[in-house]
Amino acid sequence: MNYQFSDRMAALKPSAIREILKVTQDPSVISFAAGNPSPDSFPAREMETIARELFLTHAAQALQYGMTEGYTPLREQTAQRLRTKYHVGTENDDLIITSGGQQALDLTAKVFLNEGDALICEDPSFVGALNAFRSYQVKLVGCPMDEYGMRMDALEELLKTVPNVKLIYTIPTFQNPTGRTMPASRRQQMLDLAARYDVMILEDNPYFELRYSGDYVAPIKSMDTQGRVIYAGSYSKVLAPGIRMGYALAPREVIAKMVVAKQTSDVHSNLFFQMVISEYLEQYDLDAHIASVCEIYRRKRDVMLAEIARQFDPRATVVAPEGGLFLWVELPEGCDGFTFCARAGERKVAAVPGVSFLADDSLRSSGFRLNFSLPSEEQIKTGIGILGAVMKDYIKEVQK
Amino acid sequence: MNYQFSDRMAALKPSAIREILKVTQDPSVISFAAGNPSPDSFPAREMETIARELFLTHAAQALQYGMTEGYTPLREQTAQRLRTKYHVGTENDDLIITSGGQQALDLTAKVFLNEGDALICEDPSFVGALNAFRSYQVKLVGCPMDEYGMRMDALEELLKTVPNVKLIYTIPTFQNPTGRTMPASRRQQMLDLAARYDVMILEDNPYFELRYSGDYVAPIKSMDTQGRVIYAGSYSKVLAPGIRMGYALAPREVIAKMVVAKQTSDVHSNLFFQMVISEYLEQYDLDAHIASVCEIYRRKRDVMLAEIARQFDPRATVVAPEGGLFLWVELPEGCDGFTFCARAGERKVAAVPGVSFLADDSLRSSGFRLNFSLPSEEQIKTGIGILGAVMKDYIKEVQK
Repeated sequence: MNYQFSDRMAALKPSAIREILKVTQDPSVISFAAGNPSPDSFPAREMETIARELFLTHAAQALQYGMTEGYTPLREQTAQRLRTKYHVGTENDDLIITSGGQQALDLTAKVFLNEGDALICEDPSFVGALNAFRSYQVKLVGCPMDEYGMRMDALEELLKTVPNVKLIYTIPTFQNPTGRTMPASRRQQMLDLAARYDVMILEDNPYFELRYSGDYVAPIKSMDTQGRVIYAGSYSKVLAPGIRMGYALAPREVIAKMVVAKQTSDVHSNLFFQMVISEYLEQYDLDAHIASVCEIYRRKRDVMLAEIARQFDPRATVVAPEGGLFLWVELPEGCDGFTFCARAGERKVAAVPGVSFLADDSLRSSGFRLNFSLPSEEQIKTGIGILGAVMKDYIKEVQK
Repeated sequence: MNYQFSDRMAALKPSAIREILKVTQDPSVISFAAGNPSPDSFPAREMETIARELFLTHAAQALQYGMTEGYTPLREQTAQRLRTKYHVGTENDDLIITSGGQQALDLTAKVFLNEGDALICEDPSFVGALNAFRSYQVKLVGCPMDEYGMRMDALEELLKTVPNVKLIYTIPTFQNPTGRTMPASRRQQMLDLAARYDVMILEDNPYFELRYSGDYVAPIKSMDTQGRVIYAGSYSKVLAPGIRMGYALAPREVIAKMVVAKQTSDVHSNLFFQMVISEYLEQYDLDAHIASVCEIYRRKRDVMLAEIARQFDPRATVVAPEGGLFLWVELPEGCDGFTFCARAGERKVAAVPGVSFLADDSLRSSGFRLNFSLPSEEQIKTGIGILGAVMKDYIKEVQK
């Protein structure tokens, strides 16, 4: 058989990260390539207690079909927490529970983007989001960044010149892959530009509660007075990712469309775990849990930064992230991130080359991404040492 | 704000079923409108035992990110069971775990269908599937049925005359909404026609193990020697729907594309419950469980058929289904299913009008769908009595 696949599939290649993660199946490989939280951060004992009770008292409901928009108490608890703690969401907004934060991104694209529309994103950006957008055959336009995130002068230039821009996609806090955070002034500028050029903003904010240093910066959605921001959040990084539980908060009209769109995708998200999270929020202290997770990650980040300072060539650039899961390294002039990661892989250390995160992945990138949440401190020390040695040889060779 | 939604959303209306199901939130309403299994059929006690053990021994894995194609043991167990028990699947096929059977349909459309492509389906057919296809802006072409399912003469005529047909979508066994089953000869004919006109078949088979009478008919996929059939299955009707667990079995090349497509939708399905099902299949006897579920549903079906025989006007046509969850009633000449269901709703009995299931839902249908798996026997007796009375008045009025 010669299968005739749809045109949209031509835009989707199996990602380079997946290829690299295959290497990491080998248990002798030290992996900085994943985006996984540490299993130490999962509240498994609490979930077990809740699950046992749910099976005993609410099995008929928790195992039955549920509503597409999600389990009502969880929707209310999630919206309530965002609103009281972070001023995210107003009377005019609504919230849908999604199958991970990924589905919030997918549904946003599904309800807003036609083939040929343009979308502006940070360059580099989260490859899972870029692939979701590519599956709708939109034009991805990467906007240059500096150490404070997307550059507003560059954004305005793109909004002026690129036709049919519908959406700005941003991860403003502890961005994936760069770990950078946009300051408040720049967030307000982005909102103003979005209003002036009449485009929507998709604010993807899965990491913002994982802050280890520096000052809190309010989400863009908390400054949104026009209903121009779709806010995507996730329980993956603060509870557990394997249960696939995220959400989108947006104006009611937008959520109503997302509900219709989600119904054709998967009807609703796993109801049992929606009820588990709802009970968790009721019975336990999520803020305290997040604080304890931050303790684990702060330490790992600090170990990685200290090792990098000791082991990496000083010509490599690293902006220390104030939170999140990732750290971004730029190699010096003339070096290629992909070649570097391939050589590191031969030495059994995995990192993701920057090219994977580019809007136009036919270009080159001198950067690569390191994850510090999953590896142990021991692995971080050994792995960064190996990367340092590989880097030394590679730079010497390039600059010969 | 005046939101500019994507063109695909214009093809998706909130479904009539959802509007009707809102009525059924009222606990005094007897609902034959849902597609829900009976909660009595959920193996909650067994799942609780497995879940407790999983939390204790495998939490770090079960709550972590997993592979997009699904949990390997569950994929193997599912494929193994289909192959040994039903001759479904060959060496050339592969299997992906999906977020409910719905996602298997969505992913098939995503990897095969371009805007403007045509798809032939039974008329009437499962509205959730039709809406998934509509979201890809394909042309839905309904094929007439008789009491043995899709008519092969009509199918051939459509394949000859409709341009750009890519896919035939069929629910061959205990079809939703009609409850009808295609005999083996017709299944072979469909395969032959698909080969002759070079189109794919999407066989949606969530109900086939819920047989209460009559002889087993082998799935179309078991006759597929060319790799032309994508087989969609589900654990919703044999274990529980709220956990959203289904699968697609298809040629390796097709599954490889589905994996790429699924990664942009939700990364992977809830891993914890993939592991729960895998352990269930390991430790318990799914066949015995299904046999006990069939006992429950056979009885309910028989009660409903007996009441219909007693209470409905004999001019209404009912084909007794040999399995599944649904039963289809055609009102006599001149009657409209939508008007009938609206009147039944006023009398606090909910059924779904046939028009909801039409490929072209601007047409009329004299049919309506009744679900017998969810209501109690008591509710079936009372509800069918009320429907009989409403029908009597309505027919008298129409035929006046």
